[in-house]
Amino acid sequence: MDQPALQFDLNCDLGESYGRFEIGNDDALFPYLTSCNIACGFHGGDPLHLESTIQKAMEHQLRIGAHPSYPDLMGFGRRKMQIPVQELRAIVKYQVAALKGMVESAGGTLAYVKPHGALYNSMVKDPEEAAAVIDGIRSIDPELAVMGLAGSAVKAAVESAGMTFIAEAFADRRYTDAGQLVPRDTEGAVIHDPAAAAEQVRSVVQEGQLKTISGKRMNLQADSFCIHGDNPAAVSILQAIYRIFGITLKN
Amino acid sequence: MDQPALQFDLNCDLGESYGRFEIGNDDALFPYLTSCNIACGFHGGDPLHLESTIQKAMEHQLRIGAHPSYPDLMGFGRRKMQIPVQELRAIVKYQVAALKGMVESAGGTLAYVKPHGALYNSMVKDPEEAAAVIDGIRSIDPELAVMGLAGSAVKAAVESAGMTFIAEAFADRRYTDAGQLVPRDTEGAVIHDPAAAAEQVRSVVQEGQLKTISGKRMNLQADSFCIHGDNPAAVSILQAIYRIFGITLKN
Amino acid sequence: MDQPALQFDLNCDLGESYGRFEIGNDDALFPYLTSCNIACGFHGGDPLHLESTIQKAMEHQLRIGAHPSYPDLMGFGRRKMQIPVQELRAIVKYQVAALKGMVESAGGTLAYVKPHGALYNSMVKDPEEAAAVIDGIRSIDPELAVMGLAGSAVKAAVESAGMTFIAEAFADRRYTDAGQLVPRDTEGAVIHDPAAAAEQVRSVVQEGQLKTISGKRMNLQADSFCIHGDNPAAVSILQAIYRIFGITLKN
Amino acid sequence: MDQPALQFDLNCDLGESYGRFEIGNDDALFPYLTSCNIACGFHGGDPLHLESTIQKAMEHQLRIGAHPSYPDLMGFGRRKMQIPVQELRAIVKYQVAALKGMVESAGGTLAYVKPHGALYNSMVKDPEEAAAVIDGIRSIDPELAVMGLAGSAVKAAVESAGMTFIAEAFADRRYTDAGQLVPRDTEGAVIHDPAAAAEQVRSVVQEGQLKTISGKRMNLQADSFCIHGDNPAAVSILQAIYRIFGITLKN
Repeated sequence: MDQPALQFDLNCDLGESYGRFEIGNDDALFPYLTSCNIACGFHGGDPLHLESTIQKAMEHQLRIGAHPSYPDLMGFGRRKMQIPVQELRAIVKYQVAALKGMVESAGGTLAYVKPHGALYNSMVKDPEEAAAVIDGIRSIDPELAVMGLAGSAVKAAVESAGMTFIAEAFADRRYTDAGQLVPRDTEGAVIHDPAAAAEQVRSVVQEGQLKTISGKRMNLQADSFCIHGDNPAAVSILQAIYRIFGITLKN
Repeated sequence: MDQPALQFDLNCDLGESYGRFEIGNDDALFPYLTSCNIACGFHGGDPLHLESTIQKAMEHQLRIGAHPSYPDLMGFGRRKMQIPVQELRAIVKYQVAALKGMVESAGGTLAYVKPHGALYNSMVKDPEEAAAVIDGIRSIDPELAVMGLAGSAVKAAVESAGMTFIAEAFADRRYTDAGQLVPRDTEGAVIHDPAAAAEQVRSVVQEGQLKTISGKRMNLQADSFCIHGDNPAAVSILQAIYRIFGITLKN
Repeated sequence: MDQPALQFDLNCDLGESYGRFEIGNDDALFPYLTSCNIACGFHGGDPLHLESTIQKAMEHQLRIGAHPSYPDLMGFGRRKMQIPVQELRAIVKYQVAALKGMVESAGGTLAYVKPHGALYNSMVKDPEEAAAVIDGIRSIDPELAVMGLAGSAVKAAVESAGMTFIAEAFADRRYTDAGQLVPRDTEGAVIHDPAAAAEQVRSVVQEGQLKTISGKRMNLQADSFCIHGDNPAAVSILQAIYRIFGITLKN
Repeated sequence: MDQPALQFDLNCDLGESYGRFEIGNDDALFPYLTSCNIACGFHGGDPLHLESTIQKAMEHQLRIGAHPSYPDLMGFGRRKMQIPVQELRAIVKYQVAALKGMVESAGGTLAYVKPHGALYNSMVKDPEEAAAVIDGIRSIDPELAVMGLAGSAVKAAVESAGMTFIAEAFADRRYTDAGQLVPRDTEGAVIHDPAAAAEQVRSVVQEGQLKTISGKRMNLQADSFCIHGDNPAAVSILQAIYRIFGITLKN
């Protein structure tokens, strides 16, 4: 009798270490993931870490995405920068091209792009910035899918560019009633309790709903769920998700 | 009656400006060149300058090369760094992949790679480092040619990797008797006199020889000649080369 | 018979070159200035350029200010970054401390701090950010004056911290009716005509007024006038200012 | 009855974290140390981490040193860079000035400078580079002591500049027969066994000798012992040192 398999995608931001600065717990996460978003050097991820992360992602047969950022290593791409859209578009192109070439060099295929941190959030709020990012991605390869916030206007922007949108929900982040992520510097923004994170995933997958930070129920459809690799509870959260769906680890 | 055309390649390092920091005189040089080596972001060249330089290179129908460097913006890639070869290989891959993707995004083709500055010189002296750089380039695209110092061991290293070598001589740099470039911090290393630079090109093209800094004649075969874009005399040197060969500017 | 001397301060941002990337025309500007704001490394200004700029500023007997910035070399500190105030305060401290130590090493005295670019503008609009910057400066040396936009709320913030405010007006930038600088990406934001720039200085000095971009007259008191060193007309503007006041160059 | 106290200095490199990139285990190390070398931003250490590290060092009443580096965040300052000495001198000045100002801002005193990584090693081998670094430090404050490799020529260079030398030995690194550190990429370069590291300290303190990697006994006098904070065994090594000398932790 076959056992059940994951019916949805689990992704994580990986390859963010920079030189001697190790961040995240990538090796422990690979076995649980089906996709990974690999840093492109602008918020983290030096070339050697990119190369080794790509190699491991292929060994674990993960779908690979590029994870471009504002150019802000000191701020880990988590603070908004006011960059003219023409320049931002070029910044995205550069990073996606770099990662795509390195993935192909390893015999793999770059499947999608998920912008990082403040850039990801900015796309939700700023249509002009979203359009620039999407156009930059498309100019490198129109077959690339774009991963963005489930329930946001990014979906329409991606689809109007003729590209595929991957709707992402967050296992370990709380939502506002408006359907945006609670900002990181707000109390309770990050979910550290594995059971609570797994329950958030379950309720979206099975009921198409989640509870916002105020306790309100909100409809949400998602193709992929993100667990943050720098959340110390990341592995426990992933295990809790597998458990709540009665799934045994693939390896 | 047709007028004579250039029988050799003229290349220049372009796209090295970084944000508000403008370097070189790219727009004035394009009309005289047949190839250009475009910075890849590690010694100069932000994504927006890369994009606009690629665009202009294509308008002028130049052959496009990538110009990767040690990661040293403050030193403009002109100082030797002791980087483990496995890491150096990844550093080269990243930069070549980024530029290749951006060139292809513009509808062009990346034809070759010319390492920059201290990395270029290091390949002449350090076979292990040369092998790592060449292997990194090949891993991105084995069809890429590698431009390196004419008369050096880089030729054999490139060809033993099954790739095409482009032998480069310098119009505006003096040579030691050993056939290496006179280091930049040595008096007389850079040729500022347009006539002297043009004569150096002529003697290599027509006689297969040049005069070293000590006045000795040395045999040298070259496919391409470099003029440094940050040499204030660059345009005058290019004009002198056209004049000495009796050629009218293509445009 | 004594000739008249400058009754006001003329300042310029200097020392912004970075490694091989030369920016500005510092050597030509020194003779005309009475103060200079020296970059601190975060938007421009490598240590060697800082050292040589300090040396020259002392030779020309200029008052020396530190010119700290958001950490954004690629954007030259001209784009707003959302940095938590506690971190921003530390970023300012680091830069002011570095420049102060280098000035004192040369036998000079750091007299004031003028924040750069987007940080300067942000202080006008964001009182919390202004307070953090001012507190960072004061923590390094409470005797430092703070230069900021004449007519803005920065004056009160500096004075409530018990420090001296230097009210700055711009010779080469147009003002909105609200008394802020017209953003750089707006047509007409930068004054390139030396006579117009000199007239703006004269009207503020002699009439306590200037004409906004809409042509309205606005009251303005200023202690110091800035000319941007990267304005190609900078020397001509300074010469026009000297001429309009009938002053001969000090050297 | 009084218990014995440490008769020698124990130092560690701290404050090397950069933005979101945490490195080292600083909080656990403070209680065991008598001195700390605080990063200055060029190989690690953003301004906010510098500020908080200075604060904690003062709470633990540690002697504070500056820990300047080659400008190489990606390589953590551990790879040799060929920088002209005049520029290197300015690079050291900038970093020492920044840290000194921040320490004084917190009410503390900067006591010494210990160059980091490849720069530290280069001073042992290259007298011209050592002289430039020492002169840069002296130009900021001639009262600063300079910490360098015990038994090396750096001592004479520091003393000939009229400054105090602090002779440093390494608890957790093996030595070559020539008295230099075994390079990090060599098997056995780093001592991970706490007992072995403590024994190396004991033998230098009590016998003025240590065993080189080849087993030879070598004379060595040291004022201070370094434990690397990024050695996962750092706390255990410090505890073993306290134990071997029969000393109870000060707090």
